[in-house]
Amino acid sequence: MTLMIKIQKPTLVVDLARVEQNIIRMANKMKVNGVGFRPHFKTHQSAFIANLFKEVGVNKCTVSSVDMAFYFAANGWDDITIAFPVNILEIDKLNDLAKQIQLNLLLDSIENVNFLGTHLSNSIGLFIEVDTGYLRSGIGVKQLDEIKKIILAIEAFESLNLMGFLSHTGNTYSKIGEKEVKALFSDAKNQLVHLKNQFIKEFPSLILSLGDTPAASICDQFEGIDEMRPGNFVFYDVTQFLIGSCSQTDIAVRVYCPVVAKYPERNQLVIYGGGVHLSKEKVKEKGQVIYGFVSKIKQNVWSDWIEGAFVQSLSQEHGIIYCPKEEMDQIEIGELISVTPVHSCMTADLNAQYLATNGQLISKYRTY
Amino acid sequence: MTLMIKIQKPTLVVDLARVEQNIIRMANKMKVNGVGFRPHFKTHQSAFIANLFKEVGVNKCTVSSVDMAFYFAANGWDDITIAFPVNILEIDKLNDLAKQIQLNLLLDSIENVNFLGTHLSNSIGLFIEVDTGYLRSGIGVKQLDEIKKIILAIEAFESLNLMGFLSHTGNTYSKIGEKEVKALFSDAKNQLVHLKNQFIKEFPSLILSLGDTPAASICDQFEGIDEMRPGNFVFYDVTQFLIGSCSQTDIAVRVYCPVVAKYPERNQLVIYGGGVHLSKEKVKEKGQVIYGFVSKIKQNVWSDWIEGAFVQSLSQEHGIIYCPKEEMDQIEIGELISVTPVHSCMTADLNAQYLATNGQLISKYRTY
Repeated sequence: MTLMIKIQKPTLVVDLARVEQNIIRMANKMKVNGVGFRPHFKTHQSAFIANLFKEVGVNKCTVSSVDMAFYFAANGWDDITIAFPVNILEIDKLNDLAKQIQLNLLLDSIENVNFLGTHLSNSIGLFIEVDTGYLRSGIGVKQLDEIKKIILAIEAFESLNLMGFLSHTGNTYSKIGEKEVKALFSDAKNQLVHLKNQFIKEFPSLILSLGDTPAASICDQFEGIDEMRPGNFVFYDVTQFLIGSCSQTDIAVRVYCPVVAKYPERNQLVIYGGGVHLSKEKVKEKGQVIYGFVSKIKQNVWSDWIEGAFVQSLSQEHGIIYCPKEEMDQIEIGELISVTPVHSCMTADLNAQYLATNGQLISKYRTY
Repeated sequence: MTLMIKIQKPTLVVDLARVEQNIIRMANKMKVNGVGFRPHFKTHQSAFIANLFKEVGVNKCTVSSVDMAFYFAANGWDDITIAFPVNILEIDKLNDLAKQIQLNLLLDSIENVNFLGTHLSNSIGLFIEVDTGYLRSGIGVKQLDEIKKIILAIEAFESLNLMGFLSHTGNTYSKIGEKEVKALFSDAKNQLVHLKNQFIKEFPSLILSLGDTPAASICDQFEGIDEMRPGNFVFYDVTQFLIGSCSQTDIAVRVYCPVVAKYPERNQLVIYGGGVHLSKEKVKEKGQVIYGFVSKIKQNVWSDWIEGAFVQSLSQEHGIIYCPKEEMDQIEIGELISVTPVHSCMTADLNAQYLATNGQLISKYRTY
């Protein structure tokens, strides 16, 4: 195995066995609960990893941009939801895409319904994006009159097929532990089921699409939800670990970084590995801002996190690791060290490819 | 001019007239003060923009990685300092590079001196990286005995040429206003000049290399400094504006982002423009965390910042803009809006190219 010999600079390493395990676990959970599974591919952005989903019977997916939809369409995915408020400036590309695949878009305004209805020549599915308290995008779940008007506007166009209501309960990210996440998800679910019930008689095919990794990982009551769209669970990360969505051994990615300097007098190591490799995403843990957890690499495989060690700050290319003295004595300049990212979606996005722990290079889509 | 028609998704737009103005101003300032100028190219990472430096007589540069050095070497730059603690895992590439150009590296340990001395077959320049209080990398400026030992170790190898002392006073970034930045820079300069004076008799050619955009922009006393290495000034950004390094009209880059949703009831707009386009870099201003300032675009040109408006949060692809009601009424879904990044180096790094305001596409180096 020549993996380590090849790594000379910050490199995103992925454990495909863990990825497969995460996919199988989530797919089974959705199946057992009778919930549709439309995983979000914005985390891995890779046709190779998407194929691992196909192997467990998944045939529809979610993406976060029009270009990412084109990438997966070109790689055999023919039922894709772009879970982002429709960007009408990309209307020509959307029309192209709708010709090729079953394309689902989301919106929350009559203006956008009318725009799509009058500009699309190919038919699409439409979700009304609904907000249950996250306050990012989507119409408030209680604005029944406005929602009704949007539905009627959609019905007026033959090319627009009402799919149902879609929500991202991203506020689970601010919750810690099973109890809090379950309570928030249960509340969001109840609001959405209530909404659905207002319209289901008139529109019997409409569905509820929800999905975020904390809820999908932690919760076990999905009645009323037709479809879940988690994405991050394929890799997991420090944020999910701290929320309680996964264990340390579920996290499937690390960034291997060269150690370039040691300052034992201030318990700090400098790594080649900065914001351009890890992203500047951070999280607060026990009052301390951290940019990643740290572990040694033994025989090409990352070990458990070094207790008390963490990435303390990031510049463009420098990472500063705080490390207890005893552990520090065992780390040499020129050694590779492993960093578990705070937010694997953002870290993965910075990379044009992954290196699998078996030495295989895995290609992926790139934002630009 | 078809610039606006082409933009459908988040796009980094650069005003080349401002870039040129920033370059000319800084080059003149260094010339007038008799200070060498080795600009850091990690901000723009573009051979095209590097040529604008050549036009004002600059013939040496600084980069932050070995691969970036290869990119600029391939584009005609033959005197490059990699201002990052030497990564000995890249020794073969360093040896290749040293064959092609005048390559300067930095280190702060005898171990790395010995490693380079015994592994390089081509000669290089070496800076001892010194720390004056930023506590990122570099040996403490007062550790004279250790510094002496490193110098002697360097002298033992014919391929290693002692260039001098290099420091990055990145702690200017935590200072606000002329007085604070000047005081910090003056203190760092005094420490470094004192260090240089200890060794200048024995090593008369050694130089002091310093550099960061706040000090280079704000200060006017550079006696004793041989070379400055600012980088960010080529574009500037919100951080530099808040420090006092530049005015709003000096900032040469914006990210043009489509408006995809409006929520007047909570004074928020949603843009297509997230952490993958802007980076998650943030700054605190008047107690408020901000991810960028915001302006309208009129006839393809960005206007002044909308007072009271700012990017309030970022997800992977979503940006949430807080906007006063009156201004919000004048912004439509499907319109492009301009975001001034908090940290232009990080934002630029996320892009494979720039769009100039004259419609020209400008290529650049990419981290991966």
